[in-house]
Amino acid sequence: MTNKESAGDFGERKLVELIIKKSEIFQTKYFDKKSLKSHIGDDAGVIAVGNKYLILSSDMLIEKHHFPKEMTYHQRGFKAVTVNLSDIAGMGAYPIGILISLAIPKNLNINKFNNLLDGILEACSFYNTPLIGGDTNEGNELIISGTGIGLSDDENIMMQYGFKNKDLIAISGEIGLSAIGFEILNKDSEKTKKRLIENGVSSEFIDKTITKILSPRAKVEEGTLLKKSQAVTSATDITDGLSTELHQIHNSSVKHDNKSLGFIIYEDKIPHINTIKKIATLLKKDHLDLTFNFGEDFELLFTIDPNKINEFKEHFKDKEYHIIGKVNQTNKIQLSTANKKIKRIDLKGYEHFK
Amino acid sequence: MTNKESAGDFGERKLVELIIKKSEIFQTKYFDKKSLKSHIGDDAGVIAVGNKYLILSSDMLIEKHHFPKEMTYHQRGFKAVTVNLSDIAGMGAYPIGILISLAIPKNLNINKFNNLLDGILEACSFYNTPLIGGDTNEGNELIISGTGIGLSDDENIMMQYGFKNKDLIAISGEIGLSAIGFEILNKDSEKTKKRLIENGVSSEFIDKTITKILSPRAKVEEGTLLKKSQAVTSATDITDGLSTELHQIHNSSVKHDNKSLGFIIYEDKIPHINTIKKIATLLKKDHLDLTFNFGEDFELLFTIDPNKINEFKEHFKDKEYHIIGKVNQTNKIQLSTANKKIKRIDLKGYEHFK
Repeated sequence: MTNKESAGDFGERKLVELIIKKSEIFQTKYFDKKSLKSHIGDDAGVIAVGNKYLILSSDMLIEKHHFPKEMTYHQRGFKAVTVNLSDIAGMGAYPIGILISLAIPKNLNINKFNNLLDGILEACSFYNTPLIGGDTNEGNELIISGTGIGLSDDENIMMQYGFKNKDLIAISGEIGLSAIGFEILNKDSEKTKKRLIENGVSSEFIDKTITKILSPRAKVEEGTLLKKSQAVTSATDITDGLSTELHQIHNSSVKHDNKSLGFIIYEDKIPHINTIKKIATLLKKDHLDLTFNFGEDFELLFTIDPNKINEFKEHFKDKEYHIIGKVNQTNKIQLSTANKKIKRIDLKGYEHFK
Repeated sequence: MTNKESAGDFGERKLVELIIKKSEIFQTKYFDKKSLKSHIGDDAGVIAVGNKYLILSSDMLIEKHHFPKEMTYHQRGFKAVTVNLSDIAGMGAYPIGILISLAIPKNLNINKFNNLLDGILEACSFYNTPLIGGDTNEGNELIISGTGIGLSDDENIMMQYGFKNKDLIAISGEIGLSAIGFEILNKDSEKTKKRLIENGVSSEFIDKTITKILSPRAKVEEGTLLKKSQAVTSATDITDGLSTELHQIHNSSVKHDNKSLGFIIYEDKIPHINTIKKIATLLKKDHLDLTFNFGEDFELLFTIDPNKINEFKEHFKDKEYHIIGKVNQTNKIQLSTANKKIKRIDLKGYEHFK
């Protein structure tokens, strides 16, 4: 580290690593670990309160990074709640409250502000989670910073680690669709849609991608259901793309001494992969990049004990899920492509600054 | 409300009123009040968890409003924690964790970022409160958005209302000093300091004002002590200035059907009021405006049952406090000036946007 480096040179991931490392050093120095009932958890902070566990997660959305300009203010408000509750869902807790702080540009039209507020409050109703506080300030750009509070009735919080060799890797829904929706909006969207339809992509599929980027929903019910299943060995929410999350849960597992475990993901098991491939070609994008490195789908990534798969199928029968891979002992994160080649899945999740 | 109005036309206070009003309508519609264990509280949100109560408060600090340019990055980080824990202190809870989300300008020097982080973590140690989460993003300006989590072991949370006729009004320390520190920094500070000293202001007092604006501390221990006293009938933290808080607790009391209660504050009971007056004159400012309308002192405002004042004196003997006024039945918020005139204390706390 030199004196002249900026936060931008460093990049977001490294800044976060720096924060976590420093926090650990500080907290080891100042707090008695055994008596400390709060800590930085996997996806969220954890606090023991009596015999229950609180799960707390903060996410900050910033105008130019997180809100495509086509997103209405109502959708922006809704998304802010969704993002914060997705982390709670990833740990299998049920949300019990949310706080939202706003930085509002001085010249924001009051009707837009009202729409933003309606979006926040309708999301609170949708997720059955009351708004319990926040702050409002004038800022240069629209920023919505939230903290979601979840409750786990027992100590058995779903962790990112916990998977074993041969476990099945699953996702709670479609991935890569938000990325496609984003690309369509980013171009001349009407023209692009027309071209995709002329090339055989259904308008329903296109609409779905637009809905996924503009109106994402967190899998809160699915999260609490996963927690109740004995078959589920680990879980997390996919915020920053599947590649980032796979690396994240791998690191988490390595930290817990499972040094040899690796993952294989089967390209042909990814939902709609052929349609994604066709669209990617038409948009001159790499379909694997869209599928693995974008994020914003707010699905859950979890692992299932293969010996308990029937139990799981019964338990989760009303919900969507896709088994896309397996845990193995390669200590590598790999993709088996449609033409049966093995590729490394690099850590390339969506990152600001760079 | 017209279509052309902006957030700036509306002003921060009205936006917050709009949020609270809309939230109440929504939450009445969607949530069963009796089963709802979370709500927007006085200073902070409240959630019942088992037989304990969680107090949650979010505050967002924005570069141009909350950080004088003389404030080091270490001080900025420390202040962000202080502000969030001050609300917890105002409700008499003890802090058990904090989450901090950061918007960081791309060109921020990495050493400054490190100093910011050190400030946050040292504040966590100072308040014995672990950092348990957060988020980091690139933004146009430095924004530190925090959520403090406090715990109350019983239902007896200190509220803003609860005071009765003849109760004594007290503050936990000096007010108006942050405002003076801010004014000194805002001018040619070395020259201003010199002029103040030449006019008989002690350099210790000047240093104190600078410390108060650059390195404020939350009265966390005092808050938990106040909660334990049977003599204390209400409490809140003074974030936005004494005038704003007096109006706030008055409204809170009116809501709870104490429609006739009012306050009288005695100017000559305010600590250092003569020095503040002298400095205000030299700086061409109104001394009452500095004392009542600026805020940023992070002191607590509370009321004491006069029949239990001896009990309170014994209980709070190791801590600073100043009795500055009384509750009466005028339904007015008034000041008795040094020359015994009665003035109305208007609602003029520090507000952005305008």
